[in-house]
Amino acid sequence: MIQAFDPRTGEPVGEPVAETADAEVDARVTAALAACPAWGSPGATPLRAAALEAVADALDARAGELAVIADTETALGGERLTGEVARTTGQLRLFATALRAGGYVDAVVSPAVGALPDVRRVWRPVGPVAVFAASNFPFAFSVAGNDTASALAAGCPVVVKAHENHPVTSDLTAETVTGALASAGAPPGTFGLVHGADAGLRLLRHPGIAAAGFTGSTGGGLALARICAERPVPIPFYGELGSVNPCVVLPGAALARPAGIAIGYAASLTLGSGQFCTNPGLLFAPEDVGLLTAIAEAVAASAGGPMLSARIFAGYTEAVAQAAGHPGVTELAAGQPGDGPWGATPQVFQTTLKEFAADLAVLSRERFGPAGIVVTYPSLDDLLPVLAALPGNLVAAVHVDTDWPQDMELARQVVPVLERIAGRIVCNGWPTGVAVVPAQHHGGPWPATTMPGFTSVGTAAIRRWLVPVAYQDFPPELLPPALRPA
Amino acid sequence: MIQAFDPRTGEPVGEPVAETADAEVDARVTAALAACPAWGSPGATPLRAAALEAVADALDARAGELAVIADTETALGGERLTGEVARTTGQLRLFATALRAGGYVDAVVSPAVGALPDVRRVWRPVGPVAVFAASNFPFAFSVAGNDTASALAAGCPVVVKAHENHPVTSDLTAETVTGALASAGAPPGTFGLVHGADAGLRLLRHPGIAAAGFTGSTGGGLALARICAERPVPIPFYGELGSVNPCVVLPGAALARPAGIAIGYAASLTLGSGQFCTNPGLLFAPEDVGLLTAIAEAVAASAGGPMLSARIFAGYTEAVAQAAGHPGVTELAAGQPGDGPWGATPQVFQTTLKEFAADLAVLSRERFGPAGIVVTYPSLDDLLPVLAALPGNLVAAVHVDTDWPQDMELARQVVPVLERIAGRIVCNGWPTGVAVVPAQHHGGPWPATTMPGFTSVGTAAIRRWLVPVAYQDFPPELLPPALRPA
Repeated sequence: MIQAFDPRTGEPVGEPVAETADAEVDARVTAALAACPAWGSPGATPLRAAALEAVADALDARAGELAVIADTETALGGERLTGEVARTTGQLRLFATALRAGGYVDAVVSPAVGALPDVRRVWRPVGPVAVFAASNFPFAFSVAGNDTASALAAGCPVVVKAHENHPVTSDLTAETVTGALASAGAPPGTFGLVHGADAGLRLLRHPGIAAAGFTGSTGGGLALARICAERPVPIPFYGELGSVNPCVVLPGAALARPAGIAIGYAASLTLGSGQFCTNPGLLFAPEDVGLLTAIAEAVAASAGGPMLSARIFAGYTEAVAQAAGHPGVTELAAGQPGDGPWGATPQVFQTTLKEFAADLAVLSRERFGPAGIVVTYPSLDDLLPVLAALPGNLVAAVHVDTDWPQDMELARQVVPVLERIAGRIVCNGWPTGVAVVPAQHHGGPWPATTMPGFTSVGTAAIRRWLVPVAYQDFPPELLPPALRPA
Repeated sequence: MIQAFDPRTGEPVGEPVAETADAEVDARVTAALAACPAWGSPGATPLRAAALEAVADALDARAGELAVIADTETALGGERLTGEVARTTGQLRLFATALRAGGYVDAVVSPAVGALPDVRRVWRPVGPVAVFAASNFPFAFSVAGNDTASALAAGCPVVVKAHENHPVTSDLTAETVTGALASAGAPPGTFGLVHGADAGLRLLRHPGIAAAGFTGSTGGGLALARICAERPVPIPFYGELGSVNPCVVLPGAALARPAGIAIGYAASLTLGSGQFCTNPGLLFAPEDVGLLTAIAEAVAASAGGPMLSARIFAGYTEAVAQAAGHPGVTELAAGQPGDGPWGATPQVFQTTLKEFAADLAVLSRERFGPAGIVVTYPSLDDLLPVLAALPGNLVAAVHVDTDWPQDMELARQVVPVLERIAGRIVCNGWPTGVAVVPAQHHGGPWPATTMPGFTSVGTAAIRRWLVPVAYQDFPPELLPPALRPA
């Protein structure tokens, strides 16, 4: 049985949920396979758009109830969770819009010329998709989150492996999704849910699964990626893993607005008790400025909150202790501890670029939670090679005084380095907050993601679930509609 | 030392070429890394287009010489090899055109709206690319082939591992490429060549390599794919491996034009001594028609040729013997043996759908060379589940009488099945011949390729070497040119 716990008390909350038995996992995949033709055919695009909107409407109608239940399982707070439901339904509707616009199938026609044949290419759905839900976003990266929304939009039936931290929220969401899909006319098997780690592994190994999406820890993600690679028929594994998200403050910005930067940093670091894959884990600041004092003040004024689970809290405690015990590192500031047995205390450490570079692998690791390391650098020339040596990240940031030509010149040097170590770069802002827009890229070099060419947020996320097919010298009546002559 | 052999005699031909030492492999990658900023920057697009054209011009100028040398190492014949040089230079020029058109960077802008930030996304080159050349295309899939052309176009320096069957051709091509790139102003290190299996493995494991392309056997490709997955930092491996390329003849087509189908099949099967990844290894034909007689006649009238190497000939011999010795299989026809010690004999076998389905894994394996199995099927209803169970293929074909409504109805049923087991479907034609056009998809489900979402032929091949970067709230002067406001 899977039992949720209230992070504010550490006590069990809600009824336990049964783990999904092997035969039921298989049945979900079989049903998903059976749904493929009706859900994935080019003619089903209007059905899919309408069904995604029906799911969004159904979730919105239960938003209050969902947020209340999710708060008992995550302690993320009603305001955040209500907002997250809205983000989730916004994502579903964005894909409906993208489906109606139609360009996502990337239809390309190369007409016959001379000895060359007529060749036409379009994307088709890859087949049933397994989605592994995240702990830290019970809606937007869970049962009906962006992996599910994008795969359903692509024409792929989905089987979700619920996260064990919020089983009741997952069941309630799944019930809502299933009901809305059925009302909208989606074939049975379009969507399914399984519970439990064993069920998740069986799902990933099932020959009927064609691709998988995952949001979670680096360790968990790499283990699942290995399973996908070692299947008799390997499948693509789109894992969004850990990230430290380096932020660089240039000298002009540090001089011009130390308080603003410090307050923004502390807010981004402690948002949601730091439980974001986009948390600013590393801040590179110039030496000899008032910025460090301002950061110490801002962090001291911040407060932590209850973390999502005992395991996540234990991981945070270990990661913070490792930084605190490092010989080259000193504590810069700590905030107020969060409530409950798993309450996180915001903590910021300080080191020099030289110390950091000397033990880069350890000091650049993710510390999931509200902990950061501020690395002081003597000059940008010293900083650039160290930045270039960082592992891949989802996002990086640069703070620059745009009115100061010298700072802009430094920015021109740092941006090309950040481009190579992060999938998104924020200017004069912070990495937390991933806008759900067509141009978004929530991805990045390994190990931030297992497939650096793809995003897990925004409409381009649909590309993960599509593969091309080319048709050569086809009579128009046998072509998919998007490829037929006008 | 690497020694080429003349397939017509089995004797050594040309001077032996030294294997590349470890330090030299490392030096090639270091030089490639150093070339990245100058070759890959957005501002270098005109340079890249001009340089690709310079390479094409230089190869064209030496086409005769290249074809003569390659013929001594491959015995593919002057006409085919001259044509292959032209195809290779055509590919290079096609990418130059694509670069000038500019759309390949997939620039997307999501302007700031309400609380949403301004987000802009564009593709950037992934970094130095390792290319593993193929045996069967000494130009179009080798040193200056489509992997190299697409990676250079993307802005990625390339280090090629030459195929050991044609080392002198590889050196001559590399010398031509290097000279043309230098004359065009490309930075040193933009292109490099290494020889030898050990050098290839060292190249693939080098931390400076960001992605790899490969065209070759399933066994070799999967071994290299595993190395890429197990690196400390895994890299994407775009492998184009083996394929049996099923062709389905529908009853109407079989009745209407048995001779045409038989002649086309025999021609496609024996082209280049069957040494194509697109060779039609499986032909599914209706029972009780004159088609089999026509096929037997056409194949009996065909002739083989010298295969590329002793190893490939041994593999063919083994694969044919396995089919011949299979209890459910009978020989339908054989052609004339090719010349020389490695001369292949075209051979076509016959079996029933029932026998085929009973041992699908063995009977559906690739037999690289001019060997095919004709599988007779009682009805399309019987055939469809067997087709659906085939491993992934680069290409499939369907022969249909477009004037006969019943055949068109059958085609409507078979095409959706072929879409799921092949990356390209040819109607009333044969799988050999891959047009180099923007709509091409030379890919397909695993194990035909290791990355089913990507093509290795046509302009979309450039996408393998690009990864997205998103810029959030950037001042225009810090954005890449493609993302700046008009």
